[in-house]
Amino acid sequence: MKIKEVRVTPIAFKDPPVLNATGVHLPYALRSIIEVEGDNGLVGLGETYGDLPILNNLRKVSGRLAGMNPFDINGLRTVVDEEIRTDLAPGFENLNPGTHAAKAGANTFGAFETAFLDLQARSIGVPLATLLGGIVRREVPYSAYLFFKYAEHQDAPYDADDWGEIMSVEALVASARRMVDRFGFKSLKLKAGALEPMHEADCILALSKAFPGLPLRIDPNANWSMPTALKVAERLNHVLEYYEDPVPKLEAMAQLHKVTGLPMATNMVVTSMAEFRENVGIDGAQVVLSDHHFWGGLLATRQLAAMCDTFGKGVSMHSNSHLGISLMAMTHVAASIPNLTYACDTHYPWNNEEVLTRRIEIKNGSVAVNDTPGLGIEIDRSALNRLHRQYLECGLTSTSAQGDYMRRWQPDFSSKQPRY
Amino acid sequence: MKIKEVRVTPIAFKDPPVLNATGVHLPYALRSIIEVEGDNGLVGLGETYGDLPILNNLRKVSGRLAGMNPFDINGLRTVVDEEIRTDLAPGFENLNPGTHAAKAGANTFGAFETAFLDLQARSIGVPLATLLGGIVRREVPYSAYLFFKYAEHQDAPYDADDWGEIMSVEALVASARRMVDRFGFKSLKLKAGALEPMHEADCILALSKAFPGLPLRIDPNANWSMPTALKVAERLNHVLEYYEDPVPKLEAMAQLHKVTGLPMATNMVVTSMAEFRENVGIDGAQVVLSDHHFWGGLLATRQLAAMCDTFGKGVSMHSNSHLGISLMAMTHVAASIPNLTYACDTHYPWNNEEVLTRRIEIKNGSVAVNDTPGLGIEIDRSALNRLHRQYLECGLTSTSAQGDYMRRWQPDFSSKQPRY
Repeated sequence: MKIKEVRVTPIAFKDPPVLNATGVHLPYALRSIIEVEGDNGLVGLGETYGDLPILNNLRKVSGRLAGMNPFDINGLRTVVDEEIRTDLAPGFENLNPGTHAAKAGANTFGAFETAFLDLQARSIGVPLATLLGGIVRREVPYSAYLFFKYAEHQDAPYDADDWGEIMSVEALVASARRMVDRFGFKSLKLKAGALEPMHEADCILALSKAFPGLPLRIDPNANWSMPTALKVAERLNHVLEYYEDPVPKLEAMAQLHKVTGLPMATNMVVTSMAEFRENVGIDGAQVVLSDHHFWGGLLATRQLAAMCDTFGKGVSMHSNSHLGISLMAMTHVAASIPNLTYACDTHYPWNNEEVLTRRIEIKNGSVAVNDTPGLGIEIDRSALNRLHRQYLECGLTSTSAQGDYMRRWQPDFSSKQPRY
Repeated sequence: MKIKEVRVTPIAFKDPPVLNATGVHLPYALRSIIEVEGDNGLVGLGETYGDLPILNNLRKVSGRLAGMNPFDINGLRTVVDEEIRTDLAPGFENLNPGTHAAKAGANTFGAFETAFLDLQARSIGVPLATLLGGIVRREVPYSAYLFFKYAEHQDAPYDADDWGEIMSVEALVASARRMVDRFGFKSLKLKAGALEPMHEADCILALSKAFPGLPLRIDPNANWSMPTALKVAERLNHVLEYYEDPVPKLEAMAQLHKVTGLPMATNMVVTSMAEFRENVGIDGAQVVLSDHHFWGGLLATRQLAAMCDTFGKGVSMHSNSHLGISLMAMTHVAASIPNLTYACDTHYPWNNEEVLTRRIEIKNGSVAVNDTPGLGIEIDRSALNRLHRQYLECGLTSTSAQGDYMRRWQPDFSSKQPRY
């Protein structure tokens, strides 16, 4: 089998004004949809970031893939290595490492690798997780991803969503209740680093009371100083499943772990194999959040999990705003990894748009692995075209200006980090 | 696709009386041949150790595989975990780690995993290396494996081979010449730890003179004390590609590396992911010899290589006496691993028997990857039956009594290690 054609389509979907350490989400999230069509008529799917530099990289590589064997993952690596200049400057720490220049090669490779593997699995006629090594869990658990949130976007670019404003403890608990009632989530994660740390800690304590027994995570995206992180840890020590990126720098994470005994999780300071190696010496993070988008694909995710097994680290999974192709890729790789025992993160409940013929169902807090070939999903061409037009019309080519956008609500909002 | 039937056939093949640290090879080498037949009529092949405890483990697991999907590698892991009790006592050091009880799970799993993957690749219609990630080299280089050797076995169980006695420097260089002329090898490895260390060092120096430019390795299987290893290193420092297991214990290897600057290679002290982790801290070995038979299969070999890449270690490949199924599995996994840049070891030139319809050709020191599906080889049933009868008739169920066998030549031969 050979690859006949590769299509890369940038899309935009409506993203609610949820808050994080750097500001507030823009009205649209950008993604790139990858279609790798084999000469057998089957199509493998991938989804990744839609920021322009990444889109340009995807386009550079996509032009060279026709004629290749979709099993030739090493060959894909060679093409990406030839086409993509990765800035290897070490030491960056970023709320969204996936879009950083240091990940240019990894995220370009990962986007196509996922589609190659999906095409492989569809051609063989097995679910992708089967091809990846076999399904160890048929339902992959996700956590409810809780955010603070404004009621609606500036200038009301589209109708307000029905989540309303989420700022108070009560509203946050209510949003969790809605998430749990609607999707059956069995663990809760709060995106913190946005409001006063003690208010955020109060929210976790209220969640602990409202949902006894549910594992709780808090993730301020390294927006806290060590004293703040210590103070929060004192209050939450007894209720946290893990403490995700409370402070910047691996060394500080290590120190915090030593002092508090809490397992530290990260998607910010262990984001590559080189940083994994560093972490082995420093033990800054005890739980590594995988993410096939920036770790370099599904096989790299499995490799990371194997390394975590060897070095006694836990494995969880990170998410950005994404649609169903990413969700199913996350689900399949998670279903194939025995030691991915934490519920994965997903932003999926926060969007109402899709490029697929059907939305992915989250039930009992889990996404089921399909029995059908590959990722088990199909593109709805008119939906893809609509979200592509939305991309062209919204005029965004990056969603990183979240601090500037925040200043439209709070003119004195500081982008200094850590802010608290 | 489902697995219809699994066959495990013990065989024996004639093995020349070559010397090593523990004594001399017995007249026959034992192997187990694995056939995993799918309900599509295709058969995946595997080959591993034939010692009775391992054979018994293989038989235990083989009875549970019918009905499984050959893509379900995780499912195979579960069956092996359920059936095989692995002695996890740490710290063993063994000339042949593959047959140690600590490897019971890994070698049982690896044997079937190879056959599962071969069946997958045959079913898909791609070479196994393609399924493993893509062919990065079409010719996989091997090194000429040089041994000291008696002219023939005790009691002449069969006609003497035509290699004759290899004890002197001249005979050793002549054997290398024959290997290089016949197979085109481009690197040379001497199995040492058998004769006086300074004689063995003389052999390496003579090889260096006779084959200028060819990388040279010496492997005394941890049979040297630190002073001996230091003395040999002084003489050979300028000609060795790497120094393989000169002394027992990771810490001693680390010390020797520090003092001599030579890269240390091992198949004795880094033989599992747990030992890999230990090595990261100690840096006892800079080159890890993979071996899919005891590392737990082809995917584990790829995983090991990825970890070596992450932690800055070189990757080479170990071998025991084996036939063509093992050789082709070694070749395919090596062909799929970009950083397996050393020539692999193989005992293949030392045997003249085969269970396949044709012998594997070694040309220009390399084995070519087939373009045909899977491992690209087929069982010759009459040959398999003949070597199975030879197994039954030779009466051996283990080949570990190499020291006792040595005492038939040298009654005072001591099994103390390190001996020199």
